[in-house]
Amino acid sequence: MHTDLVAALDIGGTKIAGALVDGSGRIVQRAQRPTPATEGAETVMHAVEAVLADLSASPLWAQASAVGIGSAGPVDASAGTVSPVNVPGWRDFPLVSRVRQASGGLPVELVGDGVAMTAAEHWQGAARGYDNALCMVVSTGVGGGLVLGGKLHPGPTGNAGHIGHISVDLDGDLCPCGARGCVERIASGPNIARRALEGGWRPGPDGDTSAAAVAAAARAGHPVATASFDRAAQALAAGIAATATLVEIEIAVIGGGVAGAGDVLFTPLRRALHDYATLSFVQRLRVVPALTGTDAGLVGAAAAASLARLGEAAAVVSSRS
Amino acid sequence: MHTDLVAALDIGGTKIAGALVDGSGRIVQRAQRPTPATEGAETVMHAVEAVLADLSASPLWAQASAVGIGSAGPVDASAGTVSPVNVPGWRDFPLVSRVRQASGGLPVELVGDGVAMTAAEHWQGAARGYDNALCMVVSTGVGGGLVLGGKLHPGPTGNAGHIGHISVDLDGDLCPCGARGCVERIASGPNIARRALEGGWRPGPDGDTSAAAVAAAARAGHPVATASFDRAAQALAAGIAATATLVEIEIAVIGGGVAGAGDVLFTPLRRALHDYATLSFVQRLRVVPALTGTDAGLVGAAAAASLARLGEAAAVVSSRS
Repeated sequence: MHTDLVAALDIGGTKIAGALVDGSGRIVQRAQRPTPATEGAETVMHAVEAVLADLSASPLWAQASAVGIGSAGPVDASAGTVSPVNVPGWRDFPLVSRVRQASGGLPVELVGDGVAMTAAEHWQGAARGYDNALCMVVSTGVGGGLVLGGKLHPGPTGNAGHIGHISVDLDGDLCPCGARGCVERIASGPNIARRALEGGWRPGPDGDTSAAAVAAAARAGHPVATASFDRAAQALAAGIAATATLVEIEIAVIGGGVAGAGDVLFTPLRRALHDYATLSFVQRLRVVPALTGTDAGLVGAAAAASLARLGEAAAVVSSRS
Repeated sequence: MHTDLVAALDIGGTKIAGALVDGSGRIVQRAQRPTPATEGAETVMHAVEAVLADLSASPLWAQASAVGIGSAGPVDASAGTVSPVNVPGWRDFPLVSRVRQASGGLPVELVGDGVAMTAAEHWQGAARGYDNALCMVVSTGVGGGLVLGGKLHPGPTGNAGHIGHISVDLDGDLCPCGARGCVERIASGPNIARRALEGGWRPGPDGDTSAAAVAAAARAGHPVATASFDRAAQALAAGIAATATLVEIEIAVIGGGVAGAGDVLFTPLRRALHDYATLSFVQRLRVVPALTGTDAGLVGAAAAASLARLGEAAAVVSSRS
């Protein structure tokens, strides 16, 4: 990483977070707005501009050399547009050019939020030092990103590593994406809770029906709660094994709220991985919790922008040589 | 590609083919031996040495600058060893060092046979000009390889793209690999034939129960034969969609005997792909038949060796710059 600052944006369905991030991944300035997710395209963009205005009011802004954006997907990095599922007003919205305008012409790098989290885990988290890794967020949705051959692999459109929407049960339940039996349809927090409720689990007096409440019940020995986590673990194991079999990864890193269940998730997940990661070259695959926290999106967006600029610099050097 | 010749070996469970391949992918010398697949390690190696001896008897051998090996898997390119499922005498067999000895010390590059076929299709076949591609062989087994960012992606051990053993049906039938519901367990030729027979299809007077015979029956309108191909197509579609969703590919190329079924396979496959490749960035994915034929393994092994040498040359240039 270089010593300039990078302006980072983490755009989700709930909030738009911004930061100035230094070359060691430290956040030196923050800004945030709620996402007006149900409003029109310009109203959402105004919230982004307000975050950038807050950041550029800082005297540190003068050191910012690029903007990195990690956005809820799908994104299209080649076109510079985003179409986040949870922000219906933005469809093929030209976020890159609008952010370039709003930031005084700085170079802008766009990746999906799963790719951003992966950049953060590879830089500073559990995937550090691994040349081939899958990093995932298991939360309201299931997303991810890949490190291949020592480098972030965003893919041509910035969406690679979308493990939540690979099918591991081709005759399974219909997923909102249109496919059947997707990893997310089985393993996301809401689906863990739904399955527990359908199986007869009931929340405590606080009425909490989150996946965290199901995890607490599983920890207390409730068999239906345990079974729901076991099924999520099985789907995650099949998806992780598929990824390892397709691209050869050494480690899978799991973050997000559902990963907070700890052993309730990781113990059956490691057991199920033995059932699905069977070929010799994937048998040593490790699965570990993520280390970066809620700032992973910001730190990762900054890392992706730095890597893109390093890549351009290397291309210049290589074309000169 | 450079103008030297490359010696290529295509090592399968039935035959060991060898060739001298020129810089445009033309085979200028051939040799072949049956694989003594049930014999001991040294007997199998003697067959490889006999193929190399035949090639090196040619006056063209003096122009050979490297040896490329495409081998039935699993292979371990990092260790230089192979453990082909169908050659039980070879387990962690040090094929790279033995071939180096037998070829007078030439540099040796080892990849899995799916990766070799992919190198051939990317160089001269249907994946030519595509920067992100999955190439597959659907035959007795199901194998494959990946091109990512314009380059062959063998993975650290040379096994990447092993689509035959990703699970698309996590509760499905047990696969010989130990997992359940693998693409190969549903879509390979023998499994297409098995399913048709179980459904009540019967072969003609010639007793041919191959997938090709099932394809002929499907073409003649036999509903059970059609259904068996439809199910194979569904599994292939789920696996191809998973690959595209994970690494962003623009094209999937399918070769091997089962692909010879033509529309009986490709029509339901393209239909099923609509059901599983749902996210915006994978919707334009194309599926086409392979163009390279039975020499794909040899041409691809030569290509992989040439690419490895180009990569080393580029690394030297880059470390000098």
